[in-house]
Parts: sequence; C-alpha cells; structure tokens
Amino acid sequence: NPREIITKKANIRIKTALSKMFNAMAKVSYDIDESDGNVIVNTAYIEKQYYDEAVELLKEAYKQYLGISDRFGIVEEQDKIKIQTICAVTLDGIFLRNSIPVIPRYGGILEITEDKERFIDIIGYEGSSLDPHEVFFNFVDCEKTFLAGFREIHRVAREDLENVLKKLNWRGVKAIGEPNNELYGINVNKDMCGLVTMGGINPLVLLKENEIPVNLRAMHEVVKFSDLISYKDL
Amino acid sequence: NPREIITKKANIRIKTALSKMFNAMAKVSYDIDESDGNVIVNTAYIEKQYYDEAVELLKEAYKQYLGISDRFGIVEEQDKIKIQTICAVTLDGIFLRNSIPVIPRYGGILEITEDKERFIDIIGYEGSSLDPHEVFFNFVDCEKTFLAGFREIHRVAREDLENVLKKLNWRGVKAIGEPNNELYGINVNKDMCGLVTMGGINPLVLLKENEIPVNLRAMHEVVKFSDLISYKDL
Repeated sequence: NPREIITKKANIRIKTALSKMFNAMAKVSYDIDESDGNVIVNTAYIEKQYYDEAVELLKEAYKQYLGISDRFGIVEEQDKIKIQTICAVTLDGIFLRNSIPVIPRYGGILEITEDKERFIDIIGYEGSSLDPHEVFFNFVDCEKTFLAGFREIHRVAREDLENVLKKLNWRGVKAIGEPNNELYGINVNKDMCGLVTMGGINPLVLLKENEIPVNLRAMHEVVKFSDLISYKDL
Repeated sequence: NPREIITKKANIRIKTALSKMFNAMAKVSYDIDESDGNVIVNTAYIEKQYYDEAVELLKEAYKQYLGISDRFGIVEEQDKIKIQTICAVTLDGIFLRNSIPVIPRYGGILEITEDKERFIDIIGYEGSSLDPHEVFFNFVDCEKTFLAGFREIHRVAREDLENVLKKLNWRGVKAIGEPNNELYGINVNKDMCGLVTMGGINPLVLLKENEIPVNLRAMHEVVKFSDLISYKDL
C-alpha cells in the first residue's frame, strides 16, 4: 500500500522553525494602506481569576512599548482567558507583501543595560524544530533581558524596509544595522544588514514575572488586526 | 582608548555551540591504539545523600548501553558528588585525530519505539549558543525518548569511520546512513551520510527520572580516560 508509505514518510520528517515561519508569513494579509488584514498571534491561556490583574499588566507592557503594535486580543473562553499578542513573524509577512525579502535567522535573549545592548543567547530558526522564544520564555524578565529576534536583509532593500516601517508605524523593530556590520553581537553575511526585532511574546513575560501561570503557544493563530484592541482603549 | 573598544568588541560576540565543540574536539588526545588519552566529559553535581542510589542507577544505565563508552567518573568533593560522563564530542575528536572530517549538525530528542526511530525535536549547533542537550535534558526519559546528536560525514570517509569505530569498540554511534539518504527524519547534504550519536548525558537522565536533583554542565571538563572507571568494576 503506497499510501501508507507516503503517510509515514511525511510523518517522520522533522519541520524546522524557519519552515513554520514561512508558512505563517504566507497567511499575513495586513495591508499598510488600509491598516487592516490578517496577522499572526501568539496565544496564552490563563485562569479566569487573573483577568483584572492580567489586563493591568498588559496595559503596562504595551505602554512600555513591549508589543509589536499597540494592539492585543483578550478573549473569554469557557473556563479560561485567551490572550493574543502579535507575533514578530507578522512583520516578515508584511515585508514580504511589500516585496522586501527578509531572512529570519535567530531567536534569542537580548540584554539591555545602560552601557550595552547585546544578544546573550540565540537559537537558529533554520536548524531547530523548537520555537526559540518558547525555550527562552522562562529566562527573561523584561527588565534587563528581553525576547528578541535577528533577521537579515540585503543592503539594496534597506531603504524600502525603512519606508514600510515608517508607514506601518508599529513598534517591534529595535535596530537596523549597516551592511556587513555586526549588530548586537551577531555577525551578518556579506552585503547583508542585521535587523533586530522584539519578540511578540514579551508582554506575556510580565504576567509570568507576576506569578500568573501562562500556557503559551507561539505563532499559534491568524486573526484580523481590527479584531484586536489597543491598550489605549482599555 | 582603543584597547577598551577591542575588549568590549571581543566581549560581546556570541559563541555558538559548534564553535565550543571545535574547541573541545581539539583537546581530545585519546589514542585508539593505546586505548587511553584525554576525553571530554559532562559533569553533574549531586548531593552526597544520593551516592549509593546514584551508583546503582549509573551501573544500570551503562549496562543498558546508555553511555558513550563503558566508563564514567565519580569523584567526592567537599559536600558534593561529581559525576563525569564521556561527551559525544569526544567521538568527533577521535575521528579528527584519525583524519576523518565529521560535521556536527544537531542535538535533539530521539524517539525509539518498536516500529520507528526518529528525531522529534532538534536544535542546530551552528545557529545556537546553548547546548541542545542542556535544553532537552528535562524532556527525555531514556525509555522512549533519548538525547541524541546528528552529524554528517562525506561518503568518501564512511569506510574509514567504520574502521575507527570497530577498533575503538565503544558505544555511542547508533546509526550511519547511506549517502544522500535521510536518516531518522533528518535530511543530509549532497554526497553526505548521516551519523546518529547517542548523547553522553543519557546516563544522568536516569538520576533525574529517579528524583535525584542534578546540577548539569555539558562538555565541561577534560579528563584522562584511564582515570575513569568501568561500570563492570564497581
């Protein structure tokens, strides 16, 4: 039965984080002219008893610019609360829709202190099946250490990227490097620029840091941007 | 002061697991003719109260062929017991001493059941600063899931590798793939063969599974092989 063999084969090949990201990017339909469309969100489930505390902490997180945009989702489900935060892969999808090729490289921990900003740990998207930010979630505090990603763009696309970012007017991009220059402790390939993005999961770190148990799934759902709410309207 | 700038630069570049492995490989001096020389070990500290139980569990682990060779170290230090298990990077070092180029690719979790053997999660050595097996340690049980590594060798070196392994007469190599063939769910590059190695940390998983708190450091020390002891002599 050849079908069985095919099913088995398909079943055992391991999927990398990069492959999952390209899959997610293809689902992004957010249009920077209309300021709406589909975005990719991380989801986190918490117990209902933490609702009020969680909303206050999320407002605080977004006020501190820890989110990718100013919006997130908060949905009551049977016995749980589901929180949705926009995932940085949404940015990759938006760049792609605007014909800017961005290559996701690493997820990691970014240390930010007064005199330096640098990655202290990274995991490569291409060589890994795990989502790096799920691995690092418990090792950051969003005071000195933050979840962040590292991407590469070719120097010819740098100006276009800056224009899209200006029009998009979100947060999430922490730094764009010069061509061929190391950025935050990470080398880039010939003619490429580094791009440091903040992780979409950071707002949820504040819940974890305040002893709210969080059941987390990175890059988990597709939602319409306009179905999310701005922290300013809460 | 240009010195300060240099120091700062050197300080902030991130080191990958692969770079640490090449560094460790260079310290291996084990000679397959003399059956002795320096090897790389993982270290684990446990409390003294667990000494007897730990020795029994380690004997059991090595009887089940969970170690890279039949030897490990057990050293009393002030208020702790230090256990040393040979790290799979020792194999890379031995191959290199015998002029066989092996490229370490991934550390991961190998699932072994009656009808299939496959990797279910991997982290690439090249793109990561963390040791994958430190990340995966708490997610394997050494019953169905094991710490394992994936390496690549060129087809021209396959026969030499098999000869060295025969002469070495250790355990640790689980499978060698055919050129260009996927192995245990992982693709290889053109003209390369996959090589699946068991993780040197697996014997310590049995301690963790039996509720003995383990303070683990992968690829931590260099010791002389003859300073280690065979489980058969305990």
